[in-house]
Amino acid sequence: MRELYFEDFYIGREFKTATYEMKIDEIIDFARQFDPQYFHTDETKARNSLFGNLAASGWHTAAVSMKLQVESEPKVAGGMIGTRVEIAWPKPTFPGDILQVIGTVTEIEDIHPKRGFVTMRSETKNQNGEVVMLQTARILVFKK
Amino acid sequence: MRELYFEDFYIGREFKTATYEMKIDEIIDFARQFDPQYFHTDETKARNSLFGNLAASGWHTAAVSMKLQVESEPKVAGGMIGTRVEIAWPKPTFPGDILQVIGTVTEIEDIHPKRGFVTMRSETKNQNGEVVMLQTARILVFKK
Repeated sequence: MRELYFEDFYIGREFKTATYEMKIDEIIDFARQFDPQYFHTDETKARNSLFGNLAASGWHTAAVSMKLQVESEPKVAGGMIGTRVEIAWPKPTFPGDILQVIGTVTEIEDIHPKRGFVTMRSETKNQNGEVVMLQTARILVFKK
Repeated sequence: MRELYFEDFYIGREFKTATYEMKIDEIIDFARQFDPQYFHTDETKARNSLFGNLAASGWHTAAVSMKLQVESEPKVAGGMIGTRVEIAWPKPTFPGDILQVIGTVTEIEDIHPKRGFVTMRSETKNQNGEVVMLQTARILVFKK
């Protein structure tokens, strides 16, 4: 499939990824490695936490959102390289949640003869349409 | 060790974590799962990339930064729960880099009788003192 260059982006262009199911084993495994807190690693204890249930680390939700974006077509030519990002997690991600990322281009910066920046505002939603992560990412994109 | 409550934070208070070495196998493994792009997964091809070498996914640097913060003492009472974060990656993280996070409290918000928000500006530095990730995170913290 065709790749995306800087010239292919315009404000308002939308992108939608495939979906990914957050398996409980993967949630616990990620958290043990990178965010070992009981509400991410212990299903029983997590019931008495602020989340009321085992919840994925926000960084796991972020990593899966990246996976979905990197693997979706069409791909950004030369790869998807973020330079900065703002993230909010309005709701937790729970085991069994099916995530999908919907992104919209919000800003285009033409800064160099060979490349520019594209800012995308992306929502990671669960199967109920609830936003579990909101991110605004500034991505380096090459020109044709 | 004593845990940290909202009352223990003040603007300018600093925190320093332990260090973590970014192993090449872990960089590739993380990227295969969450950020499968050649400059994160293929050492040979990565030499011709923008990074000039195999580089860790920015999300891997973020996840390791979280690990270092969660595992450092003293711990935040009830856990470290981020609500939003701004991240920049001024430099890539390479295999063999030894990372450490140094954080400073920049804002205190007393919003509720039982809890508040603490904003921390944290730098993840490599063994040469170069900042590979800069984050400003707003964390929910419980009162005594």
